[in-house]
Amino acid sequence: MQILILGAAGMVGRKLTERLVEEGHLNGRAITRMILHDVVEPAVPQAPFETTALTSDFSQAGQAERLVASRPDIIFHLAAIVSGEAEADLEKGYRINLDGTRSLFDAIRQVGDGYCPRVVFTSSIAVFGAPFPEAIGDEFFLTPLTSYGTQKAIGELLLADYTRRGFFDGIGIRLPTICVRPGKPNKAASGFFSSIIREPLSGQEAVLPVPEDVRHAHASPRSAVGFLMHAATMDTAAIGPRRNLTMPSVSVTVAEQIDALRRIAGDKVASRIRREPDPAIMRMVAGWPRRFDASRAESLGFKAEKSFDEIIRLHVEDELGGKIAG
Amino acid sequence: MQILILGAAGMVGRKLTERLVEEGHLNGRAITRMILHDVVEPAVPQAPFETTALTSDFSQAGQAERLVASRPDIIFHLAAIVSGEAEADLEKGYRINLDGTRSLFDAIRQVGDGYCPRVVFTSSIAVFGAPFPEAIGDEFFLTPLTSYGTQKAIGELLLADYTRRGFFDGIGIRLPTICVRPGKPNKAASGFFSSIIREPLSGQEAVLPVPEDVRHAHASPRSAVGFLMHAATMDTAAIGPRRNLTMPSVSVTVAEQIDALRRIAGDKVASRIRREPDPAIMRMVAGWPRRFDASRAESLGFKAEKSFDEIIRLHVEDELGGKIAG
Repeated sequence: MQILILGAAGMVGRKLTERLVEEGHLNGRAITRMILHDVVEPAVPQAPFETTALTSDFSQAGQAERLVASRPDIIFHLAAIVSGEAEADLEKGYRINLDGTRSLFDAIRQVGDGYCPRVVFTSSIAVFGAPFPEAIGDEFFLTPLTSYGTQKAIGELLLADYTRRGFFDGIGIRLPTICVRPGKPNKAASGFFSSIIREPLSGQEAVLPVPEDVRHAHASPRSAVGFLMHAATMDTAAIGPRRNLTMPSVSVTVAEQIDALRRIAGDKVASRIRREPDPAIMRMVAGWPRRFDASRAESLGFKAEKSFDEIIRLHVEDELGGKIAG
Repeated sequence: MQILILGAAGMVGRKLTERLVEEGHLNGRAITRMILHDVVEPAVPQAPFETTALTSDFSQAGQAERLVASRPDIIFHLAAIVSGEAEADLEKGYRINLDGTRSLFDAIRQVGDGYCPRVVFTSSIAVFGAPFPEAIGDEFFLTPLTSYGTQKAIGELLLADYTRRGFFDGIGIRLPTICVRPGKPNKAASGFFSSIIREPLSGQEAVLPVPEDVRHAHASPRSAVGFLMHAATMDTAAIGPRRNLTMPSVSVTVAEQIDALRRIAGDKVASRIRREPDPAIMRMVAGWPRRFDASRAESLGFKAEKSFDEIIRLHVEDELGGKIAG
């Protein structure tokens, strides 16, 4: 079994790679080769099978064809220009997120000769834009308010159509906000959801730019990898033609996040959060989803954490070696 | 005021052209020039203003730029590869319906210099695919089951994003089945909805391939033109970022269509319908929408007929000069 990962150098791509190396097989079949692709060179892990790193802009002519030439059985398409950059650079966002995705799908189609790989596409909750109901159901319409969300929604539509036509067996998974994101704080407006947990746990101060009653939906990095693994191996007959699924998540307020932090790490750690309201971030967050009803994905076997406590515990276990800076 | 119509040679395009010539102005401003574009040469009407016919494949490099070079104030984008052909020829459908639409939108964007025309895009109820609720509401998700419907849904997303970014002022209108379609019977699977009215009214026999309890949503050609005119002239401030609207329609069963025909034209005319069930058409029709709740469009001033009787009367008036073949 051969696996191709596009976007392998990103946080989720790296964790997925690690997990696949650890497992060594998928659906009872041994992994024999893994192709790791990104626009920057992805790290090649020690693995009991052949591992190849490829670096290119997959939206350029001939590049997608090169990636699928060896007929990988499973293709994880995680590559994307992220939200902020796609908004700042319209042409780049459309080129990578739309043209790149379409090039990949067309390259698979053109292999022909019965080739029909499983394609797992990471979409995003950015396909939804306010106003929406308190809980966004599985049949709520796509109303992106960013070019990134638009491009992801278009990717979903292409995935469903190409799957319907039998060119591949596609599943689109809409990831919630991944929390706790490991590593340094980044510039994403949603970064505080992770940093108010991550920084205090490592003895550092974090800034909270929104009121504590802000509610949002989260899943751990481990769940994100779990969603991808399940999408790659599940029986797709049960999905039917509606190939894009909102993933399960834990919906909590910031106050509930902080309560969970206090329960797990104590008052001293929780006191490292400094309130510093930022009107610009508050305005953006007001337009974000608060809760999803992910019944379809759950009934198809996708699983996230059940509480924010669990999300914090996984972070301590996976990233901090079980240790909290008291 | 300068107007550009893409897809001007089609049935709706021709009727829209006639209506604009008749009106001579739009929103209180005189029409000074009309550019009629299609892949086949559109008929140029007698008009009290300059009228230019252009013929090209607008998806080819440089063609869309040529169409918008004179900075038309209003652009009607009706051009499309229709459902059956887009399904039979994947590459052609995506090239015209996706790449062509995107080329047009990008050509408008690249004019720059404050150019921001009104763009009216005809989408389709093919963006919806079964299963759906008895009445499809304004917030029901897009689940196309054809490549044509996929391409229209992508056009809607692009229209909304480019409008949000201020490149143009776009409105997408999802047309219901247009009934009674004038002219010869065509090969569309939905053709019988029109032919069971049109043929009997002209003294000819028509075939009904489905049971009489089949329900579907219709609007007249005159309403279709009315939707386009309203979309071209309405105040778009009220629409907000959700730029694509399901148009109003009359939801009736085939039995109700036939009852209306009998009321208007008598038993003899209605008896010209021959029942000849066609399992292939019955299967397709089973996946079509039955009814729409078009509250948003209605509240924004879009109007369709209130009864199927009215739809038949308009056909007799507009296409038959008021005469029924008794």
